[in-house]
This record gives sequence, C-alpha cells and structure tokens, in this order.
Amino acid sequence: MQVTDRTRFTRYGHRQVTDRAALHDVLDSALVAHVAVVREAPTPAAVVLPIASARDGESLLLHGSTGGGLLRAAAAGQTVTATVTVLDGVVYARTVFDSSMNYRCAVVYGVPTVVPDEEKEEALRVLSEHLMPGRWDEVRPPTRRELAATLVLRLPLEEASVKVRAAGASEDEAEDDAVWAGVLPLHTAVGAPRTGDDVPAGVEVPPSVTSGAHRLAGWVPPYR
Amino acid sequence: MQVTDRTRFTRYGHRQVTDRAALHDVLDSALVAHVAVVREAPTPAAVVLPIASARDGESLLLHGSTGGGLLRAAAAGQTVTATVTVLDGVVYARTVFDSSMNYRCAVVYGVPTVVPDEEKEEALRVLSEHLMPGRWDEVRPPTRRELAATLVLRLPLEEASVKVRAAGASEDEAEDDAVWAGVLPLHTAVGAPRTGDDVPAGVEVPPSVTSGAHRLAGWVPPYR
Repeated sequence: MQVTDRTRFTRYGHRQVTDRAALHDVLDSALVAHVAVVREAPTPAAVVLPIASARDGESLLLHGSTGGGLLRAAAAGQTVTATVTVLDGVVYARTVFDSSMNYRCAVVYGVPTVVPDEEKEEALRVLSEHLMPGRWDEVRPPTRRELAATLVLRLPLEEASVKVRAAGASEDEAEDDAVWAGVLPLHTAVGAPRTGDDVPAGVEVPPSVTSGAHRLAGWVPPYR
Repeated sequence: MQVTDRTRFTRYGHRQVTDRAALHDVLDSALVAHVAVVREAPTPAAVVLPIASARDGESLLLHGSTGGGLLRAAAAGQTVTATVTVLDGVVYARTVFDSSMNYRCAVVYGVPTVVPDEEKEEALRVLSEHLMPGRWDEVRPPTRRELAATLVLRLPLEEASVKVRAAGASEDEAEDDAVWAGVLPLHTAVGAPRTGDDVPAGVEVPPSVTSGAHRLAGWVPPYR
C-alpha cells in the first residue's frame, strides 16, 4: 500500500510494514477498531470510541445504531481514522528504558461511505461472521426494521500504515546479564460461556459459541 | 466527575457511569490507551495510536520517546483524547440485531502537561509498576541519558466519560426461546514466559514476571 505523509513513520521506520497481508492480519485479529472523528467545539479534539469492525476484502466495515453520534459524524464526509491494535506481549529488557511491548497496530485513514440498503444485510453477515463466527445461520435473518435501525460504514483500505514489534528484548548497551530478559506473551482468551437466565433447560450452547470460542482462543500469536 | 457537552452520551444514557471509581477501574485494567491528536493537513483528521499508560492518582501518565511524533504533538498544548477500552465478552442474543459486547470504556479529554525532569523518574516508576509490576526493583535505575530520552505526559482526569455494558443478552421483542442466548466472556491472558536467547543458563524467570503474570491473568472480570 501507498505510504503518504500521514502514514510515514517519523521513527522506528524498520517497524513499518507495507504489505497488505500484514494489514489484513491486524484487522482480522481484533473485534473492535478505535474510530476517531474530529469535533471542532469547544476546542478541536478527536472523539475516539471502540466500534465493532470487520474487514471485507479491501475495506473495513464499521457498524452501530443509526442513533450513534460517532458513526453519524463519520458518515458525514470527513476523514475518519480507524486504529486497530493487538497486544502480543510485554517485553522485559534488562533495563526499564529498553523494555517494550510486542504489538501489531494498523491505522487506516479515509472517508467512509454508507453501505446502501440493498447491501446492508450482506455487510452485517460479514460483520457477524467475524464477531460471532457461525452465529448467522443459527438465528433468524434481520428484519427490515432492524436493518433500517443499523448504520454500516465502509472505510476503504487505501491509506493505511501497519507497525509491528515482534521480537525479544534487546538493550542499547551491554547490561548485567545476571538479570533475566524475555517476553511475557499476551493473548485474548475466552472463559466458559454463561447461559442466560431465561434460556429454557435443555437448550444447549450452540456450535457458534463453542467453535467461536476455539477460534478466539486460537488468536494466540506465534512468537512475537 | 463533571459531564460536559463533549462527554454526555447522546444515547444509551443508562450506560454512562459517572463515579471516579469506575473511571479508575477502566484505566487500571489496560496497558495502553488509544491517544489521539488532531492533525490539520492534508485534511483535518485524528492521529490515533496506542500509548503505554498508567493512572497516577487523578491523572493518566503517557510515555514514549522524545522522538515520537504523536507524543510531541500531544505536548504542544492541544486538547488530547485518550480512550481506554477493555472488552469483557461477546453477547449472543437470540438475534444478530440484539447481539452486543460487554465492555468498559473510558474517554478522557484534556491538555496534558510535560512531567518535569525532577518528577520523571517517579512517573516512570509508576508506569513501570503498572506495566511490569515488581520489575522496577529488579533492574538498575534509569540513567540521566535514559531519562532525557523519555517523554512523559500527564493528562488530568477532569473531563472524562465512562461507558460500561455488563449484562447478559436481551432482545427488544419476544424471540424463539429454543435459540441459546448468553455471554462468551473475554479476558487478557498470559502465555509462558519466553526467555531471551542471550540469557545465561541458570538465570531464573524473576518474580516480576511470574507474579506479574498472575496479576494479568487476574484481569478476568466478574460476570459481565
């Protein structure tokens, strides 16, 4: 992908990754993007909120209620920023100064388009399959009223940057090697499903939850 | 805390939490904040990046290299936004439309101050104790050169909002109760520590990593 003034790193250029596969990997590894719009009053500042997101080919889908202020603002033609971060580990160097984190981070800039009515159900299916794989086929399809109450935005993956740190500890200078150094890996894990109080006895936890659980637990990254 | 035009929710007002304990809980439950500044060119847009953060009383400390573009911009007097999100679960309702996520999210607006030289080591200790509890006392203190190369910002917790969803599934209307509904809890978990290749045989994994690991694993929230 293209590196622009906005996406070019001012430092740690070696951590800039420019292949699309890396961008896809980050976006596919998280459930939410931190989405920002600029609000001018009372002082110019960004509004930044987590929004459930899913990649659809070369765009990122963002969805929420038609009543949501952030998404409405994001649909109004301004440049939107969507940052997706996956923390992969805490890096314990032999000094606090050299300590760090392993992570993958993608930043996407763009002017989103509103997914038109006739494409909305398919976009919601893509979101649902990312957030709750397999669930779509276990429940009834959305109604027209539900579709009308949902806003889906499509942010093109045209201007984006990806930064990755995936390495062990290292120090700028020689340090006391009696001090341990290494990485404490982090990942997102799932607990046991909690069945709702109003679910009748005999209704089993469905495959979307049990297999979805496995998929989420499978997020454990390789060594980073 | 005070609710301003910027922090008042336009919808789901019942999820707005205004006590400081809830704000502290969110900030204490994550390793990074998504920090945003406004960049005017080529089009007004937010720059949003993850920054390692830690709460220090009634402020949020953010730190990085003095060479980092985002922190430098954040130190220049503009209003900065710091959003901290903890995902606690995927909520499987009986419809896709009613499905949701359990989460805790804090948004802080403010103009950060640069932590002065004489307070920087203590601020870094607070950050270190949050990010790698116990590590500070296992390694040598930072040098003057290291302190000089580190920028620490202090963002006051004066204008902030907290939003929490911590509940089971529910639907707007009666749905087929043969469909399972419930919550798949999510939490951050740690893997086995990975010792660096250059660590001599016999250097054991220190308490900061083993006990820190337990603390991170202890993030599993109560039912949400």
